[in-house]
Order: sequence, then structure tokens, then C-alpha cells
Amino acid sequence: MGAFADPGRITRAGLRLHPARRDGRKLLPDLDAAIRACGLRDGATISFHHHLRNGDAVLNQVMDAVARAGLRDITVAASALFAVHAPLIEHIRSGVVTGLAASTIYGPLAVAVSHGILARPVLMYTHGGRARSVESGDLSIDVAFVAAPVADSYGNLNGTHGRAACGPLGYAVTDAHGAERVVAVTDTIVPYPAVPIEIGQDWVDFVVPVASIGDPSLIVSGTTRATADPVALGIAETAARVIAASGLLTDGFSFQTGAGGASLAAAAYLGTIMAERGVVGSFAAGGITAGIVRMFDAGLFRALMDVQAFDIDAVDSFRRSAAHQSMSASMYANPHNRGCVVNRIDASILGAAEIDRTFNVNVTTGTDGIILGGSGGHADTAAGASLTLITTQLVARSHAKVVDDVTTVTTPGETVDVLVTDGGVAVNPRHPELADRLRAAGIPLVGIDDLAAEARRRAGGPARPRAADGRIVAVVEYRDGTVIDMVPAA
Amino acid sequence: MGAFADPGRITRAGLRLHPARRDGRKLLPDLDAAIRACGLRDGATISFHHHLRNGDAVLNQVMDAVARAGLRDITVAASALFAVHAPLIEHIRSGVVTGLAASTIYGPLAVAVSHGILARPVLMYTHGGRARSVESGDLSIDVAFVAAPVADSYGNLNGTHGRAACGPLGYAVTDAHGAERVVAVTDTIVPYPAVPIEIGQDWVDFVVPVASIGDPSLIVSGTTRATADPVALGIAETAARVIAASGLLTDGFSFQTGAGGASLAAAAYLGTIMAERGVVGSFAAGGITAGIVRMFDAGLFRALMDVQAFDIDAVDSFRRSAAHQSMSASMYANPHNRGCVVNRIDASILGAAEIDRTFNVNVTTGTDGIILGGSGGHADTAAGASLTLITTQLVARSHAKVVDDVTTVTTPGETVDVLVTDGGVAVNPRHPELADRLRAAGIPLVGIDDLAAEARRRAGGPARPRAADGRIVAVVEYRDGTVIDMVPAA
Repeated sequence: MGAFADPGRITRAGLRLHPARRDGRKLLPDLDAAIRACGLRDGATISFHHHLRNGDAVLNQVMDAVARAGLRDITVAASALFAVHAPLIEHIRSGVVTGLAASTIYGPLAVAVSHGILARPVLMYTHGGRARSVESGDLSIDVAFVAAPVADSYGNLNGTHGRAACGPLGYAVTDAHGAERVVAVTDTIVPYPAVPIEIGQDWVDFVVPVASIGDPSLIVSGTTRATADPVALGIAETAARVIAASGLLTDGFSFQTGAGGASLAAAAYLGTIMAERGVVGSFAAGGITAGIVRMFDAGLFRALMDVQAFDIDAVDSFRRSAAHQSMSASMYANPHNRGCVVNRIDASILGAAEIDRTFNVNVTTGTDGIILGGSGGHADTAAGASLTLITTQLVARSHAKVVDDVTTVTTPGETVDVLVTDGGVAVNPRHPELADRLRAAGIPLVGIDDLAAEARRRAGGPARPRAADGRIVAVVEYRDGTVIDMVPAA
Repeated sequence: MGAFADPGRITRAGLRLHPARRDGRKLLPDLDAAIRACGLRDGATISFHHHLRNGDAVLNQVMDAVARAGLRDITVAASALFAVHAPLIEHIRSGVVTGLAASTIYGPLAVAVSHGILARPVLMYTHGGRARSVESGDLSIDVAFVAAPVADSYGNLNGTHGRAACGPLGYAVTDAHGAERVVAVTDTIVPYPAVPIEIGQDWVDFVVPVASIGDPSLIVSGTTRATADPVALGIAETAARVIAASGLLTDGFSFQTGAGGASLAAAAYLGTIMAERGVVGSFAAGGITAGIVRMFDAGLFRALMDVQAFDIDAVDSFRRSAAHQSMSASMYANPHNRGCVVNRIDASILGAAEIDRTFNVNVTTGTDGIILGGSGGHADTAAGASLTLITTQLVARSHAKVVDDVTTVTTPGETVDVLVTDGGVAVNPRHPELADRLRAAGIPLVGIDDLAAEARRRAGGPARPRAADGRIVAVVEYRDGTVIDMVPAA
């Protein structure tokens, strides 16, 4: 039906829950007690969010407790999984975990999944698609575990304070509103009430204290540092010029970029142009980074719409700025609510592992077929933004990145508008008026077929043909719940 | 099953909704267009909230548009109805409105209802029961109209700013999360995004600008002014002494009082005792008033939990204080979520039109059988608080207020602990240990039967017998959805 199909009237699933007794207590001594109190059983689905990113210590502690409880056949539905979650491999080998779902998977677990460690394919959704899935009932969560930087004993939570403060709890909000049982795991219990409350006591069944929910210094992952590479900086500057020439860069401009190095550099260039022109934007959305906070603090945006802080500067900004607004995963990117924030983005700059001649983008697998990430908000933002730019070098580590066919389709080409590379800028033929604007602004354009040919030439050989068969190890679900691609075993 | 029954596992209703198209616009020219866009039909249920109290101009404007559209047989499910909503009488007479539900009804409409203007009984729920009803699907709302002091064109709303700023939108939150269609009605459109967002764009279908949503100076109704009557002041001081003697007035103390004059005076006395003892409370909840804000600003409470500002001082406090926390109607008082805020209240001071010898309280009807209010949060707070005090004079306008049987049961006696009157203090026999504490503190106690006898004596005659039959004009629903009483035509 395409990326912009109208689903018509829909019905969200009913919610099973266990009302609190008036005198009921929620504070439990440990995770083992929480697992018993939730009545967790073999075959259940449990969920996690990734606000602590590669610093998260909650998932591993919970899974160890699940294993101690002798449970089997558990599905782990995470918003994202990082290198720190490699211990899941052992839980998969032992049969504790037999199902996995995540919008991105990084590190050793991604490699193990790619090689077929699981009998059932992994479900890879988008951030917005995951929210849709929880709300529709497609993803039925028995117990959501929420890593809470601060909690009180009756289940009010926030990420504003605490030793592992992570800022907005946008992904956790959606889980807490959709799970039958919600367990808050915290290392900082404060006196009731834990204001400012991000997730209220009316959504939390139990509170469990642990020694540490994680290492806040590792919220910043490698993907959130700006680039210093001159080629990448050239691409970033061109991307900013494309936006400046698009006609969108006027007062009220709204912007999102991923956490990739080139995207962050492009944001910096864009900020310079905005300051020169005196443009005041309405909001930047995301995943918020230090670079975006600097633009906000400089008055280049009136507000930040934040589902997740990507670094400590963003956490600090969230704590001190009333116009640094949290949003749930659903509000951020779910196509099946009354209007998500990505719909309001003027320009978005996103990265690519590969992009093909119909502008389909792969951020799910490498050319070797190994999972190296996943959509996260990539497909959501591309679909929502008026102007979606993909920035990439033509070649990386002797692999062409502009190709005839992407190894895996993460984001459909119909939602991508411009490709900016070190070999030139290509505009999706769906947008001839945009091409005219860019040419008029002195930005030379090339055809994407030419970029693919140049990439093939520089890479020194034809692209490796995509694996045509083999057991499926991952199903890539588009934000609307349809299957957009599948990943065969590497 | 009693006020404290455990409902076990429950299932909330699924939600019908119409996802936004990516390019969909929400701003409509007027209410007539909104009614068409929502596909409102004969027999539908529409909802309103009462944050603007007797200053609300939205309900009447919407109902006029509903009448203009030629619709019939509409049920109006409001959180509360005030004297300003008297024009509903005409819509009832004309057949536009045939159903009514509200937690409180004041003014000419209450009189008309009491005399049987509607063929179907009015449903009178509690604030928490209404939230339960929306979430369970018992109350299925076709279109929720939200009076929004500030909105942007994509449906982000807040009550923090705007010319009719009313503070928290707690009742509207619950409606927006439960209705098939949500229409925001505003007189202040601001540039996107309308931060700080209280109700997000993901919950709002349409935005309609009107000249005025109401008169903010009328948020303060007659019920929210402190008393100056010396008899009432004596009762208030005694109420504060009872709390001080109860053993609950230690650090972390939590408190709620209604907006009645004696309750507000009691809060002031209580504040003096807290300051003398150096007690720092955890929170005050409600309906927040200027008096409670003063206690908060003086450091007597660490936080305010606020479903609705009762006056302009409370609106100002909400705007400037991060620890002045908004809460939805469900979080406030719904017995069927994972733990509502009333469960955490130590002491609550509430008023009464009548109280009987088993401590049942009536705040729904006068002795003449005419509806004069309704529960609001009365029954919720009484059930949740550890210590519930009822304050009342023995006699008002020659009617006994302590009676053999209340005209209407609003709040069951099992949830009421102490009665404080100008004739003495009575403790519910369910709590002999509390009686001991009060006696030990030098507070003389009397039996409630003696208070009833004294009230009858002062009133100068026997209470008028309760009307035993007659057509039922209102069904009084307890917070758990059971019928606790019915009101016959007056």
C-alpha cells in the first residue's frame, strides 16, 4: 500500500492489568521477588528500553534472574540492544530466550543472530512501529522492565535526576502503557513523590532496588560523536547547503538528524546558516545530542522534542529547560496515532550503510549480511519529514555504498528525497521541483545511477550479490507493521 | 463487596481511533466544521471537562453547534456541570440532549434535573469512578471536547499559558485518552509546538479556534473561599487538632482537603501546627487552592499533586514550580489502576450536606431532595485516605445535618473515620485506637447518635422523611462502578 497509506479507523488492544489494593505495597526486595510477583511463566514476552544505551545494566540483571527462576522460551522485546547485552547469547544458547525483537541490534549479539543462533527469526521494528505494535496488541508484553534513574516506593519514576539520569523515558512510557505488568528497576529511591514524574504510579506494579542500573557515562555510544574526517565534513556541508536551498529553511523550520558523525557535523553547518539568515526554527526532534542542545541554547530552535537523550549534555538540558519537551515513542513516531512528531519535521538528515538506485536505504545489515544496527527511527523520520536527506560516502572499506540493490531494505526509497555523497548530490526523480531549486542555488546534481557506477568503480569490483536464500534470521517490519524485508543467515 | 474490594485482574477497553494522515491538517474554522469532521451522529456521547469551572464558555458553544447541526438524543458526559451550563436545560427541552452524566451538578440545571426534566436518570459518578468508567469502556465517548487555554495547530495543548490559563488539565487527559475523537477548543493558538505540552498531538484529532473559551476570573467558584464564620472556624481548628493528635502528622505527612470554606480554614490551622512542630509533609493533593499553595511555598510540603487548579494562585504556582505536579483524573483517584494518588493520602478533610449515624455522607442532594453537587472526589478521597474527617455544623438553615439517614448516600460510612462538628467530635466505632489517641490528646469525644439527637433538637423538629418513591432522576455510582444510591424526583 506504500509508506503513506491511510489505515482508516483502527482499534487499539484492550489492556489487562491488576489494580492496586488500597494498602498494597510495591517495593520488593529484588528481581527474583519481582519475577515471582508478576507470575512470569515459560513462553512469556518481557520488554526493555534502551535509554541507558551501552551503559545499561538492567537487562542483564533481569535476564540472570529469569534464568535463576528456571524460566524457558522467553521472548525479549527490547527497543534496542547494544554490545553490553552480549550475555543474551548465553541465555539463548541455554534455551531461556528463544525469541528476540528490537529496532536495532549492535555488537556480538547482532553477529550471533546473523549466524542463526535463534530458531525463530528476530523481529526488527522501527521505533514508531514498535509503539504501534504495542498499542495494537501485535506485541503483547507480559512484563515491562523499566530502568528508572529515580523512583519512589509507589512507582513514580523520572530520568531527570539520579546517578544514572538519562533524561526522557520516551520508550519506557510506551511500554508502561502497554504491558500487563510493569516493574521499575532503580538504584535511587527517593521520598514520595518522585517529582517531576515522567511515568506515574498508576502505570507501575512493582519497584525493585538494585545496586546499579548502569553506567551513565556510556549513554554516549560511538555513534553520537561528530566526525573529523574531511570527506565526511564535505558531505555534511553540502547537506546543509541542500537544506538551505530547499525553501524550507525559514522561520518555524524543524529538523532531525541521526546520531551519526556526518549528521552531527551537518547540523553544525546548518546552525551557522540559520544564524546568518536569522532563522528561528520551531523545534529539533530526536534523540537529542549536545550539538542540537547548543543550537537550542543559541536560540536557533524554540523547543526540543525529545524521546531519548543521546548524551549527558542532552540530559542536562532536559533538566533545566522547560521547552526541552519529552515525548513517548508513540508521540514521536507511531504512524497509527492522531499525528506523530515526525510528521512535523521539515528536514531530516540520516545515514546509510547502503542506498540503492531507487533510493531504498539499508541501515540493518552490512554487505556481508551481518546485522549492524537496524532502523531505530530511520524509517519513521524518513516517512515523516518533508525533506529526507541521506548522507554517505560512496565507498567504505572497499565496499560500494551506493548500489544496485541494497542488502536489506530498511527505509523505502519513496520516503527518501536527496542523496548527498562525496561524489555528488542526487535527487529522487519523484521531486523534480526540488531538483530545480537545488540547481538554481548552484548545487550541481548527478543521477543516482551515475553515483552507483562511480561507487562500483571506486570499490574496484562488482558488489557482492545479495544472498538469495538461506534460513531467515530476521524479519524487518516497516513502521505500519508490514514486512519490508527479511535477513537470511550470513 | 465494600469500598475496599479487590477487583482482581481487569481488562481495559480497546480504543477506536482515526490515525492522522502524514499531511493531514487539524485546524478547522469553527465548531460546526469540527462536528462534521467527527461524524457526530444522533445518539452519540460527547464529553467535557470542568477546569474552567463556572467560567467555562466551551460547553455552551459546542452544544449550540450541536443543536445547529440538527442532532438529537445526545448524551453529555461532563466531569462537572456549573450554573453557567444552565443553557443545557433548553437543549434538553428541545430533545437535543437526552442523557446526562457528571460527578457534580450545580445551579439551575441541578434543580431542573431534580424535578425530572430528563426521561433517563442522570449518571452521577465520582472523579475517580469517571476515569475508571472511561478506561473500562463503561462510558464510551464518541467525541471529547477539550477547552484548551493554549493549543498549536497540530493539537498540542497546555493550560499553563493563555488568557484563560487554568493549570493542570487532569480531567481532560483522561477524556483525550479514552475518546474516539478529540477536539481541542482554544482561544490562544501558539506556534508549534505548544510547550510545555500537557496533552500531546498524538491524542488530538482537531483544533478549533473560538473567540473565548471562558472567563478565567470565574475559575474560583463560591466553594473555594475560606470561611470567616466563627462557628466554622472553631470546627476547622478542631479538625486540625484531630489530625495533629492522630499520629499521622510526622515528616512525610500528606493531605487533601476539599474546596469548602471550613476545609480551607482547617488547612490554615494545620499549617500552623506543622510549622510549630517542624513537620515537612510529602505532598498535598487535590483540587489545589491558594491556601495549599501558601503551605507549599512555605516549605510545609515537598510537592503538590494537582488534578485541577481551584484558583488563579494555584495556576500561577503550577506555572512556576516544578514540584507542582499535574496528574490525570485516573492517576488521581481511579481505583482500577496500578495505584492512584488518593491511596497515598494520610489525612483528608471533607465537607458534608448530611452525615448519618453510620457515617454515610451525602454531598449529592439537599434535605429537599434537590441536587446540590455530587461526589466529585469526595468518595474517592475518603476511600483512599488513612484518616478521613468530615467537618460540618450540626444544623444549617434549620435543617439537621447529622441525621438518622442521609437523603442520598454519596460516600459510604466505612470510609469515614471522624466527624467534627460544633457539637463535638465523633469517631467511627471501627477505629477504637484512634478514639484512644484523640482522648489522650485531650479532645473530648461524643457518640454520633448523641450528635444526631442534638442536631434534631437544634433544628427544632424531626428530619423530613426521605422520599421513598417517585421516578428516579439520578443514579449515584460509587467509584468502583456499583450503584450506591438513587435520587428520586423532588
